[in-house]
Amino acid sequence: MANESAKRPLLSGLVDPPKYPQKNTTTKRKRFLRSKSAPSVDILLGPTEVGGTLPDSKLNSIYFRPSLKQVVLYLVIYLGAGAACFYLVKDQLAGRKTNGVLDAIYFSIVTMTTVGYGDLVPNSVTTKLLASVFVFTGMAIVGMLLSRAADYLVEKQEMLLYKALHMRCKGGEAHMLKQIETNKVKYKFYTTAVILVLLITIGTVFLWKVEKLEFVDAFYCVCSTITTLGYGDKSFSTGGGRAFAIFWIVTSTVCVAQFFLYLAELNAEHRQKLLAKWVLTRRMTFVDLEAADLDDDGVVGAAEFIIYKLKEMGKISEEDIALVMEEFEDLDIDQSGTLSAADLVLAQSNQ
Amino acid sequence: MANESAKRPLLSGLVDPPKYPQKNTTTKRKRFLRSKSAPSVDILLGPTEVGGTLPDSKLNSIYFRPSLKQVVLYLVIYLGAGAACFYLVKDQLAGRKTNGVLDAIYFSIVTMTTVGYGDLVPNSVTTKLLASVFVFTGMAIVGMLLSRAADYLVEKQEMLLYKALHMRCKGGEAHMLKQIETNKVKYKFYTTAVILVLLITIGTVFLWKVEKLEFVDAFYCVCSTITTLGYGDKSFSTGGGRAFAIFWIVTSTVCVAQFFLYLAELNAEHRQKLLAKWVLTRRMTFVDLEAADLDDDGVVGAAEFIIYKLKEMGKISEEDIALVMEEFEDLDIDQSGTLSAADLVLAQSNQ
Repeated sequence: MANESAKRPLLSGLVDPPKYPQKNTTTKRKRFLRSKSAPSVDILLGPTEVGGTLPDSKLNSIYFRPSLKQVVLYLVIYLGAGAACFYLVKDQLAGRKTNGVLDAIYFSIVTMTTVGYGDLVPNSVTTKLLASVFVFTGMAIVGMLLSRAADYLVEKQEMLLYKALHMRCKGGEAHMLKQIETNKVKYKFYTTAVILVLLITIGTVFLWKVEKLEFVDAFYCVCSTITTLGYGDKSFSTGGGRAFAIFWIVTSTVCVAQFFLYLAELNAEHRQKLLAKWVLTRRMTFVDLEAADLDDDGVVGAAEFIIYKLKEMGKISEEDIALVMEEFEDLDIDQSGTLSAADLVLAQSNQ
Repeated sequence: MANESAKRPLLSGLVDPPKYPQKNTTTKRKRFLRSKSAPSVDILLGPTEVGGTLPDSKLNSIYFRPSLKQVVLYLVIYLGAGAACFYLVKDQLAGRKTNGVLDAIYFSIVTMTTVGYGDLVPNSVTTKLLASVFVFTGMAIVGMLLSRAADYLVEKQEMLLYKALHMRCKGGEAHMLKQIETNKVKYKFYTTAVILVLLITIGTVFLWKVEKLEFVDAFYCVCSTITTLGYGDKSFSTGGGRAFAIFWIVTSTVCVAQFFLYLAELNAEHRQKLLAKWVLTRRMTFVDLEAADLDDDGVVGAAEFIIYKLKEMGKISEEDIALVMEEFEDLDIDQSGTLSAADLVLAQSNQ
């Protein structure tokens, strides 16, 4: 990435030791580390915590993240239903046919992923409407289920890739985890790129050797498939080819989609970092100081400064702040402008 | 939407007058409104401000939002280059042909949007590789340029839709703008749905009346096209049909993609609101109080409370806070834990 150097000054500040020897860094670190004890949603919702130690099981239902088992289950049910329908009306499908069951599954996959070769096409009103419904629901399924599952899988693969790339580097497991955490999207992007190259290679070799296509045609068919273009002049025509295609098409089309998704995320993250840098390095004026002074006491505390700057970065909105402020005012029974233990006892006994 | 009622208690709090008559609401409102003066990125980057009054022209380059003109320009260049290439090698395209130039543009569009009917297919090594490259770059272009342009256009249409839906309702322009702002994604979703139904109708009628397909076939071809499935058994075969297809395919495929995008956003927003509600209504414990107390003074100020709760909601991360804290400590020359005008003068004369 060409923009790595632009990011480093921002990130290194978090990883490196503090660079201001003239100040009492111990107290600062302490004050700053205190906020670590606030629960972050990421931690609350981490894969290890889900299922047992959550403070409220409602969180599970709010952030519904399907497990791999669930994704496979839903997909099998959806494809099973689709394939069963198309098997029942298999005489109303025209085109190059192999085994009845295999063709029904293959047709379902080619339709769901919107590849649509056209080597098998519906030729009755029933099958045409069936395919129309199936492709819309398929898009939703692929978008919602598979994309999440792929993200989860890529996250798991990241660590392997990092290990392979930095085999000779010093720094233990903790260093690695920190590196991956800081450059999460970047490693996801690289991992997806590696998997994509593998899938393209496997697909091309398969079409070339097993389906006996010319080498260029095999590559062209791979490109046409993974982008969901699917002209259909070259496709999987043998039983073995279609059995392979069932797995390969789903994997590779989802992989390409994730590749572009991470590319966009990487781009957004880069812009966000540039903006953060701009917001943090720009000159603070007296007008800013006054505007940031939330409680009107003439000075800006650390928390006020954080809110002001994060708002400027677009991370939080006026609406977010207003929402939380309402709750704060409910709890601040004595209207002192601060919450104390006494406020909490009073507020909660009132409820 | 079935979950509207769940959202209302949260949103209404922002729009309705405060509901706690026992408290001195004037001072509270004042304190709360103070933070309005902090510049929000949304405001800084609003369409009216871009071009002139921005405090730093760098912001423009950070948040690169192509104008409609730019999108159209890039698209014309990209498609023009593609069509020119395919026109030069038009003898290496096989299939149903009409006018040379029209076919080249039509083939470019069908490829770029990954519809890939297969009614025109490359049949030489050059055209096959050309199409492979063109579809990958096309995906990136559609994803990056068109999606942003569509979002912009939908935002403009929103207001028209809202006006049409609430013609007899009281409440002026300001009320409408507030309503749209609060339910932005919902109105975008509805607007896209309306446009989508229009595009489906236009496409079906066109294929039925002009391309002389059966009515069911016309609808089936529309579904097959807008989802980018493109089996290719039914497609645009006349010159007039292809001229229409050039515009209709781009619009409708982007529209379907946006439809699913907004659906996902709506879903994410709903979960985010549920989470916010859960975070705000759950009982605050003494442990929370201690954890939220960023400056260790024994009480939790409004700003500290906001940071603690927004972090719990996942809106801001530990990393965000750490980044801003570093800047704060740089500015806080006298290490009082607060920023005053004196700190600013000292800090900036040091630089």
